[in-house]
Amino acid sequence: MRGTVIYGPGDIRFEQRPDPTVMQPTDAIIKMSLTCVCGSDLWPYRGLQPSNGPTTMGHEYCGVVEEIGSAVKNVKRGQFVIGSFATSDNTCPTCQYGYQSSCRRREWVTAAQAPYLRVPLADGTLVPTQDTPSKEMLPSLLTTSDVLGTGWFAADAANVKPGATVVVVGDGAVGLLAVLSAKLFGAERIIAMSRHEKRQSLAREFGATDIITERGDEGVARVTDLTHDLGADSVLECVGTQESISQAIQATRPGGFVSYVGVPHGVNLEGAKLFFSHVHLHGGPAPVRRYLPKLIDLVLSGKINPGKVFDLELPLDQVAEGYRAMDERLAIKVLLRP
Amino acid sequence: MRGTVIYGPGDIRFEQRPDPTVMQPTDAIIKMSLTCVCGSDLWPYRGLQPSNGPTTMGHEYCGVVEEIGSAVKNVKRGQFVIGSFATSDNTCPTCQYGYQSSCRRREWVTAAQAPYLRVPLADGTLVPTQDTPSKEMLPSLLTTSDVLGTGWFAADAANVKPGATVVVVGDGAVGLLAVLSAKLFGAERIIAMSRHEKRQSLAREFGATDIITERGDEGVARVTDLTHDLGADSVLECVGTQESISQAIQATRPGGFVSYVGVPHGVNLEGAKLFFSHVHLHGGPAPVRRYLPKLIDLVLSGKINPGKVFDLELPLDQVAEGYRAMDERLAIKVLLRP
Repeated sequence: MRGTVIYGPGDIRFEQRPDPTVMQPTDAIIKMSLTCVCGSDLWPYRGLQPSNGPTTMGHEYCGVVEEIGSAVKNVKRGQFVIGSFATSDNTCPTCQYGYQSSCRRREWVTAAQAPYLRVPLADGTLVPTQDTPSKEMLPSLLTTSDVLGTGWFAADAANVKPGATVVVVGDGAVGLLAVLSAKLFGAERIIAMSRHEKRQSLAREFGATDIITERGDEGVARVTDLTHDLGADSVLECVGTQESISQAIQATRPGGFVSYVGVPHGVNLEGAKLFFSHVHLHGGPAPVRRYLPKLIDLVLSGKINPGKVFDLELPLDQVAEGYRAMDERLAIKVLLRP
Repeated sequence: MRGTVIYGPGDIRFEQRPDPTVMQPTDAIIKMSLTCVCGSDLWPYRGLQPSNGPTTMGHEYCGVVEEIGSAVKNVKRGQFVIGSFATSDNTCPTCQYGYQSSCRRREWVTAAQAPYLRVPLADGTLVPTQDTPSKEMLPSLLTTSDVLGTGWFAADAANVKPGATVVVVGDGAVGLLAVLSAKLFGAERIIAMSRHEKRQSLAREFGATDIITERGDEGVARVTDLTHDLGADSVLECVGTQESISQAIQATRPGGFVSYVGVPHGVNLEGAKLFFSHVHLHGGPAPVRRYLPKLIDLVLSGKINPGKVFDLELPLDQVAEGYRAMDERLAIKVLLRP
């Protein structure tokens, strides 16, 4: 088969790769129905993350089980499945506490932008649907694998409660689905920070009540204005830079909650500042496996349509074009069809 | 009157000061029953905090109301009262959320190591007892003003639940009362980190089930051992250094809770490390006013005896000796009697 490999900043190739095979009895091989480009794929693409030579790419996936190892019990050949970007046994104490993305046996999925994928710990990682979903459902189902699961975790980790005033920092696909998630958690007021018209419009469609175009101190001042000098109850940080995290902390009221769900790059938090901010802070790699059954249900029941974040669709072999479009912010998120 | 002033590192003087007077209609003047030296007083004493010349000291207090401003309604002359080290109106939105130590009108109390003290925002800051308490009760009541309130906040902010495994980092008076608080919150296992025999023994008396003498990576490894390779549910950080906070984060299981209640000095948290630790983080200046009524009840009903942290008692005019004893760890906490 051919699969996606990054050779260096800006250098994405779709090239010959070995077909994945069952290596452990707990593995499954799936035939990809849809995959996509993640905002976090842009860190190495932009050269903002150290690299050790050519690396396979992709960690959002859904597809049909092609083969299973001898120990796999929960999924069967021919089933449609969705999994998390982090594999998990779903039985260890950390998994039991709902933090499957810190499972002791966790591996990161890193080769999903390809027609076939080996998924380790298949029983604890993959969630099958009862029936094979319709084609129309696939993009929204794909989002549960990471981008929606991550936006959902942002809302959960920031303790969004019915009636709350919420700020979402970041208008990438995760930020937009964090807006959608906050809405489903019952937030009354959702302030999205965005200066991009198309994203603003999708944010409003997903439930944003206010849009702030200012950033940094000016952005914080606008939140302060909108919240009667208090700050927001919950701020969902969906970027991962020093500026965005500082902004999130400053926009939160004392005793409020800040979540951060994108791997921080070059971020340092000054202890004393954080201390006097009086915020709660929680985040990390989203434990998508915890949320998958619920999110799949929400999609299949037609209650949400998170697939709307895909505004560009390409054949998988044009994956390099997909990276370019996201890097230049020409597309919010790129769907790849094998 | 004479009061306590710091002139520089190691230079504490008990010297002539103006008698405090009612300056605002919301002020009260109290006649000090007891005051004490706080662990945080040692930061400037050790020269680890920038100073702007001579500064009055002391922020833990209880006493009898001597005079009130014309707007004060909740406390009366002659009443015994306890207040927080942070004043609060107890009516603003931040106070209503229970974060009185971030009240919009907050002032820090900074002159309590003296026979008389002016307390701004008396109605929102001071809590009177129904009757004048007995002399024997006074040391324990004094602790509610800061050190117990702060230990209690450490347990609350770290979400200590019945049955939980808790680690307390720091064996100062706050750490010891964090042990007592964790016990009252229902923790099943309380691991205290201490290498000081007298403090270990008090920790056990307050409810510690295990003592760890190792620090840094070795301390973390011991916690990991004791928790079956998982980490603790809640870790209460009661020191405020880079080492202690790093140790606290590493000793917590993914999804667990870290609280930090001492002003961090020279602490920087690396975003990516915090992210992958998957912990919840909360802390700040303890909102003592929120807890005062409950803590006063616990003391007056005889359920707790936090005053045991005072292992040296001095006349107020020997305050400099008190600082020295705490600095050299000859005393856990020094009671000062006006």
